[in-house]
Amino acid sequence: MPDPVDFYFDFSSPYAYFAADKIDGLAASFERDCVWHPIMLGVAMKETGNVPLAAQPVKGPYCIHDWERLARYQDLPWTMPDPFPIATLAAARAFYWLWDQEADLAKHFGMECFRAYFGRGEDIQAVETVAAIAAPLGADADALAAACADDAVKQRVKDETGSALEKGVFGSPFFIIDGEPFWGSDRMWMMKRWMKSGGW
Amino acid sequence: MPDPVDFYFDFSSPYAYFAADKIDGLAASFERDCVWHPIMLGVAMKETGNVPLAAQPVKGPYCIHDWERLARYQDLPWTMPDPFPIATLAAARAFYWLWDQEADLAKHFGMECFRAYFGRGEDIQAVETVAAIAAPLGADADALAAACADDAVKQRVKDETGSALEKGVFGSPFFIIDGEPFWGSDRMWMMKRWMKSGGW
Repeated sequence: MPDPVDFYFDFSSPYAYFAADKIDGLAASFERDCVWHPIMLGVAMKETGNVPLAAQPVKGPYCIHDWERLARYQDLPWTMPDPFPIATLAAARAFYWLWDQEADLAKHFGMECFRAYFGRGEDIQAVETVAAIAAPLGADADALAAACADDAVKQRVKDETGSALEKGVFGSPFFIIDGEPFWGSDRMWMMKRWMKSGGW
Repeated sequence: MPDPVDFYFDFSSPYAYFAADKIDGLAASFERDCVWHPIMLGVAMKETGNVPLAAQPVKGPYCIHDWERLARYQDLPWTMPDPFPIATLAAARAFYWLWDQEADLAKHFGMECFRAYFGRGEDIQAVETVAAIAAPLGADADALAAACADDAVKQRVKDETGSALEKGVFGSPFFIIDGEPFWGSDRMWMMKRWMKSGGW
């Protein structure tokens, strides 16, 4: 089996929501796994000098329009959340705690976090909210809430973020396939071409 | 015939080069004309606080890699130019002077400017360079060089840039179809969908 597709994202990134809906299917069509890596994009933004899209003049309103349009074209529910963007530490910590138990459960949870935040506009910052999202999927909500306060789990998110930055990740979504970087939800066609051609 | 596709760009934008190669074909497939509007993106960047991509840490090297890859995937010649970016006033002025004579000639000239700068890495800032690009296409090189110094032609570029900013253009390439904005060379699929669906 070829190496997996690495998918880096922040739960607060709309374009990651649109990518998350498609990336596992794309990877599977080339018999690849997909490894999800939620990171704290705010840290990356400080290093690269980027500013959150919605806060930028002119570009911000365009992006809000673009997200709504993309949701329509991908047939995904959409509600522009407020507050936006948010710190998604709880979701990321819960994700890795679940990931170490069962990758598919973690991905399911991750997609439900995206749907809660961008599909229904719910604030997913609180640990209790994140636990409530995980519970119906079969996770132990109390244990998950406790994990979010665990030092090792906290460190895991820091380490994953640091490791992503070292690999050159600077935005969300960001993908690395066989060492080749792809930035943005609109690079699916290039990743497809890359995998189809055996890395050309 | 439906309204034309409006294509806003800076001759110094790599992603505009990749878009210019495809946009007329896309528009024509929906029986639309395409109106090219070279603008001075530096002015737009000052207003929106954007920074040229290649000058950004981490993101810059990624973009340079992405341009080379896009050129390969679109089968277009590519040489990373130096200096980059440049002021493309002469090319924009010459373009509008030609456009008022014959739109197809102006587009042909525009594509040749892109190929000179990004395909062969030639600095196209000087009026003489731009005139030399236009001459083999049938343009009067001396008249074109004179036009680049003409106050009305200079004003035309300012007016087109101002008009673009008023319409919300903040990057290159940028497209407006039936009032709907699309930013980026990777939005071709969305424009196709928009035109196919009659604006949904």
